[in-house]
Amino acid sequence: MGWLRDESGLEKCAANHVPLTPLSFLARAGDIFAGRTALIYGDGRQTYADLAARVSRLSSALAGAGVQPGEVVATLLPNVPAHVEAHFGVPAAGAVLNAINTRLDADTVTYIFDHGEAKVALVDTAFLPLAEAAIARMEGPAPRVIEVPDPVAGIAATGRYPLYEDFLASGAPAAGWIMPGDEWESIALNYTSGTTGRPKGVVYHHRGAYLSAVNATLAWPFGRFPTYLTIVPLFHCNNWCHTWAMPATGGTIVCCRDVTARAIFAAIADHGVTHMGAAPIVLNTLINAKAEDRRPLPHIVQIYTAGAPPPAATLAAIEPLGFNVTQVYGLTESYGHVTECTWPPECDTLQGTDRTARKDRTGVLMPMMERIEVQDDQDAPVPRDGKSLGEIAIRGNCVMKGYLKNPEATREAFRGGFFRSGDIAFQHPDGYIKITDRAKDIIISGGENVSSVEVEGALMHHPAVSLCAVVAKPDEKWGEVPCAFVELKEGAEASETDLIAFVRARLAGFKTPKHVVFCELPKTSTGKIQKFELRAVAKLM
Amino acid sequence: MGWLRDESGLEKCAANHVPLTPLSFLARAGDIFAGRTALIYGDGRQTYADLAARVSRLSSALAGAGVQPGEVVATLLPNVPAHVEAHFGVPAAGAVLNAINTRLDADTVTYIFDHGEAKVALVDTAFLPLAEAAIARMEGPAPRVIEVPDPVAGIAATGRYPLYEDFLASGAPAAGWIMPGDEWESIALNYTSGTTGRPKGVVYHHRGAYLSAVNATLAWPFGRFPTYLTIVPLFHCNNWCHTWAMPATGGTIVCCRDVTARAIFAAIADHGVTHMGAAPIVLNTLINAKAEDRRPLPHIVQIYTAGAPPPAATLAAIEPLGFNVTQVYGLTESYGHVTECTWPPECDTLQGTDRTARKDRTGVLMPMMERIEVQDDQDAPVPRDGKSLGEIAIRGNCVMKGYLKNPEATREAFRGGFFRSGDIAFQHPDGYIKITDRAKDIIISGGENVSSVEVEGALMHHPAVSLCAVVAKPDEKWGEVPCAFVELKEGAEASETDLIAFVRARLAGFKTPKHVVFCELPKTSTGKIQKFELRAVAKLM
Repeated sequence: MGWLRDESGLEKCAANHVPLTPLSFLARAGDIFAGRTALIYGDGRQTYADLAARVSRLSSALAGAGVQPGEVVATLLPNVPAHVEAHFGVPAAGAVLNAINTRLDADTVTYIFDHGEAKVALVDTAFLPLAEAAIARMEGPAPRVIEVPDPVAGIAATGRYPLYEDFLASGAPAAGWIMPGDEWESIALNYTSGTTGRPKGVVYHHRGAYLSAVNATLAWPFGRFPTYLTIVPLFHCNNWCHTWAMPATGGTIVCCRDVTARAIFAAIADHGVTHMGAAPIVLNTLINAKAEDRRPLPHIVQIYTAGAPPPAATLAAIEPLGFNVTQVYGLTESYGHVTECTWPPECDTLQGTDRTARKDRTGVLMPMMERIEVQDDQDAPVPRDGKSLGEIAIRGNCVMKGYLKNPEATREAFRGGFFRSGDIAFQHPDGYIKITDRAKDIIISGGENVSSVEVEGALMHHPAVSLCAVVAKPDEKWGEVPCAFVELKEGAEASETDLIAFVRARLAGFKTPKHVVFCELPKTSTGKIQKFELRAVAKLM
Repeated sequence: MGWLRDESGLEKCAANHVPLTPLSFLARAGDIFAGRTALIYGDGRQTYADLAARVSRLSSALAGAGVQPGEVVATLLPNVPAHVEAHFGVPAAGAVLNAINTRLDADTVTYIFDHGEAKVALVDTAFLPLAEAAIARMEGPAPRVIEVPDPVAGIAATGRYPLYEDFLASGAPAAGWIMPGDEWESIALNYTSGTTGRPKGVVYHHRGAYLSAVNATLAWPFGRFPTYLTIVPLFHCNNWCHTWAMPATGGTIVCCRDVTARAIFAAIADHGVTHMGAAPIVLNTLINAKAEDRRPLPHIVQIYTAGAPPPAATLAAIEPLGFNVTQVYGLTESYGHVTECTWPPECDTLQGTDRTARKDRTGVLMPMMERIEVQDDQDAPVPRDGKSLGEIAIRGNCVMKGYLKNPEATREAFRGGFFRSGDIAFQHPDGYIKITDRAKDIIISGGENVSSVEVEGALMHHPAVSLCAVVAKPDEKWGEVPCAFVELKEGAEASETDLIAFVRARLAGFKTPKHVVFCELPKTSTGKIQKFELRAVAKLM
């Protein structure tokens, strides 16, 4: 190990060692970018000086409300300024941010409130009924609710709880922040949207939040002074840590409460948005936007997409609109993205299917991460042959501390010194990974593995298909067979027979759906299709 | 502090904690950028796979030569590929890199060899006489010399020592690297070019090297796949950590042995250089280049400049040539730059002296650093009024571990929880710092502080002046008076009286030089003018 023979006097001290935390980015921005716009929502603007002061107010108000360092503060908030403020203000109180998915059912929120032990909850007026229903069923002590109305969206306060702005007013704009004494201290608690069983509480540390924020900044890259549109919910891996990254770049966050094509095109045209993260379903929204909702783009807009592998047809259709889409991949357990489909300049000339095939890859390791492998059953890397399947295993500083109060699940997740993603992939000879499926989404038909993503990709090429999902349907003869659920484009028509024949012309017989159901697909708040619901339907069919 | 009530199972493990080290950047690049060009020198090219393999060879050859983790490996090398390889290969052996300034005198190199206890020294053939003279005078055991000839520069091996390529051949191209077990382990030892007394050995850790490499990548920013020309010597703060940064970006390092206008313009034109670091004196070289040495630039070339504050006249003259110059500031103790004259987009329209006055600032804190203050005698921040002077004090992860075997000097340097730079500055109301002088370069004339930099700036506006330095000359009446040493441009003429009158028209009487000496200025290898030599001359005059 690299210790010199004589290291006397070379220990850590206040001058040369500071625990890594995204709070440092805001402290610096509040000073050197004091007058720059940090935040835009509706007609409202905050400079970095404003944001830093409001964060001070929030952290000191939380302390005033009795929140101790290490205690949990929950949110039930859309992507509004208060949610950005909470991302800094809660940690600045030494507390741990638990941003809860606003589309969860009350029962799950009850579980999260009880399990996470939130002392305070910042709740958007629109989600008060959810919070109240959840609190009513709690076993443990309820969080103290602070109501966050949203006049920009026309949502007026009920007045049933202390109001956020009054709460802020009780804090001091120049209050010091509680910086971590150890970068391993917890900064956030994010419950995975488990498809079965209770959600698990993924714990983030300050170090990982800092390095994850740097990841996108360095790789995408954000460059200097980007304008970033928050499409990815702040309760989803803390918005892939992008909100924490913005002060490092001096950039501007544009808040977006409702994810509509109209709102996105308007934000780009009015505020000069340069970057946004979005699930593939949002790309479809942009592609299928009505003419009156579209606005000319002032420049090429960079999009990171993740949450599900974007169909090739989507990638092909979005680029001509003026968006440059880069696929990234990650999980709640990895602070959001840890791979990126890094685009080498020599690929710029690729066209057509060559281009979408290249864009279609899941990608390579992001710069602040240590290692990613596709491992076989023996935990050995699979050959890089573009076909051998294995499980994605991840190692590095942007991997969670573990699951809260669940050492067993943590141990299992970290077996062998890697985080085991449960996602199935192969590796191209050049190292680029391509996800074929979530382990749980693989369909095993007649002993053959069928990638649901591959079947979905084939269906998406059909001109009438707007969105689709393929799941396993139990089958007496084959064990399982692919079953497709399809949303058609407005006004378009296609029959079950049409679609089966269409896929059959492209894929092997055992991969062809045996059933097609036309319906609106159930989705999570982040645009992921909830396949577990479809699986339940398929089972009953 | 942010510890949850129950943190059981949330400890560090192999999956979620990896010590920060720039070696990780190269490990990743050797994989995902395997086929991309990492290094160019003359007609030679290395891909990242090549570089990673040569680094493996070097590290295993060092181990084979008996170098133990924590031991020191020295270099006396210009900016050639072997020096880049040593920046990764020495730490990959768990060893500590001591890149020695090749322009030092033999006596100082003797001191460094003895003090640093180098076990092996990689020595360019041209510097063998220096190494041999230094070794001859050593008290302790001599380093084992490996000779690095340079056929590209026409420097053939003497054959008196084992040759670098043979040494590499003795190593294994797939040997594993010794990664740090603790990011506080030492990675480099850099002796400050002390102006008086013995140089001090500044110790860097892996964490600081990693974060410093990210600093420029994020701030400048390097963007993806830059082409970086190594003008700053690799023995100067490890080339401001830029060499360690390159693999993180997938960029290409172009080695430059001889810093001439011809070589720089050729590298830009032939290899598409996008970024370079350079002392102000190199900017002058470019400005004053002969027509036959110039080549058209394919794009705007980004330059970080540091080592001395660039005169406004230089900033004004370099930009029209197609270079965008950004001033940065730092010291060996801070891994190179820790402030940057960050350019807000709204300044793009500035012209003339407004523009150079803005570019002339020393800057603001870089993103991976924690805090910079300009402190008065009581260690309190001076008012941000654009005039109150104080000492620059720095805190953050890009501050050295300390001085090797000198706990007393380390303690003194870190007094009050900041690294004390010894540099004098004021702060503009918006927080931008402006260095007025190194503490030791301040001239005190009749009780008034005279900034030598200010007087130099005035002199540089004279059309005949190519370069100048102003130092204190002892004076019976005033205590000290400013004394100017001047290099005139080729063919240009100016008398002592002319220059004194010229400055007098711009500055107060007590700031005007009382003497002007025309001569070639003594410079360090990094382009810093050696004022201590000039002070000695002034004293004798």
